Amino acid sequence: MHGSPRRLVRLAVLLLFVLASLTAVAKSGSSNPAVAIHSADDQWAAAALAKDVDKSVSFCGPDAAILVPNAPAAEGKEAIRKWFQEIFNIPGFKLSWRATETAAAKSGELGYSRGTYELSFTDASGKQVSDHGKYVTVWKKQADGSWKVLRDIFNSDLSPAH
Amino acid sequence: MHGSPRRLVRLAVLLLFVLASLTAVAKSGSSNPAVAIHSADDQWAAAALAKDVDKSVSFCGPDAAILVPNAPAAEGKEAIRKWFQEIFNIPGFKLSWRATETAAAKSGELGYSRGTYELSFTDASGKQVSDHGKYVTVWKKQADGSWKVLRDIFNSDLSPAH
Repeated sequence: MHGSPRRLVRLAVLLLFVLASLTAVAKSGSSNPAVAIHSADDQWAAAALAKDVDKSVSFCGPDAAILVPNAPAAEGKEAIRKWFQEIFNIPGFKLSWRATETAAAKSGELGYSRGTYELSFTDASGKQVSDHGKYVTVWKKQADGSWKVLRDIFNSDLSPAH
Repeated sequence: MHGSPRRLVRLAVLLLFVLASLTAVAKSGSSNPAVAIHSADDQWAAAALAKDVDKSVSFCGPDAAILVPNAPAAEGKEAIRKWFQEIFNIPGFKLSWRATETAAAKSGELGYSRGTYELSFTDASGKQVSDHGKYVTVWKKQADGSWKVLRDIFNSDLSPAH
């Protein structure tokens, strides 16, 4: 009975189903959209901490915009690439962030992350400058199941006089 | 034939359906979530332009946060109320904004608006100060069908030296 063709077919169908599910989960990072967004946010932060321009840009969707403070928004991947290149070239530049909250719509294709950032660099006079603040990123699930940045905006907790 | 009971019942059912639909649309502002968010954003901006603290706070959900630049975030309705009171009390204060884009998830309970703001006030020395910038607001549909602010964040387009 254990090796009957019918049982084997059933087992094969079950295995195929499990494999298909695992592949889908691997693509999106997780079957839970809020967890998948958190994972994408963490990986994006790691790319920026490593000052990897290509990888940092790769987390942005085709129509992404980064609403940079004290400057006009960086609209689209080329403007975003230029912005990452500029900031990563600042002497002593270090940017790290961490999501404190992620959530997604029930339909599972749109969500957001919220978190805090820390930033430091060396200014023209050789002085160490430090900043910290907060951000909101709107994420959109792509056709391939990956989550990409749609809108990103951040601001400082510090007073301008600081 | 025109006044047959069967036709009248059908007409009554149709009218009830239309009324129910109109009531649902009236509650949410629109049956299209992106349009409803745009409408809520416009009404929120009108309340802020009128410096109406109660009305400005009423557009914020129970767990809303406004991520104010150059200050820690205003977490929850009481902190948001205090913040609106403070800024509306600044001499010559005027804040206006306009959504340039709204979108919602397919499930229709989560979405965002993006737009630009203009701000002016009179500083301690009597000088007129002007600022303009951009914002992203995450909106959540409430149980009663209304859209409320969940997260709001904005920053200036101007350099700090301005």
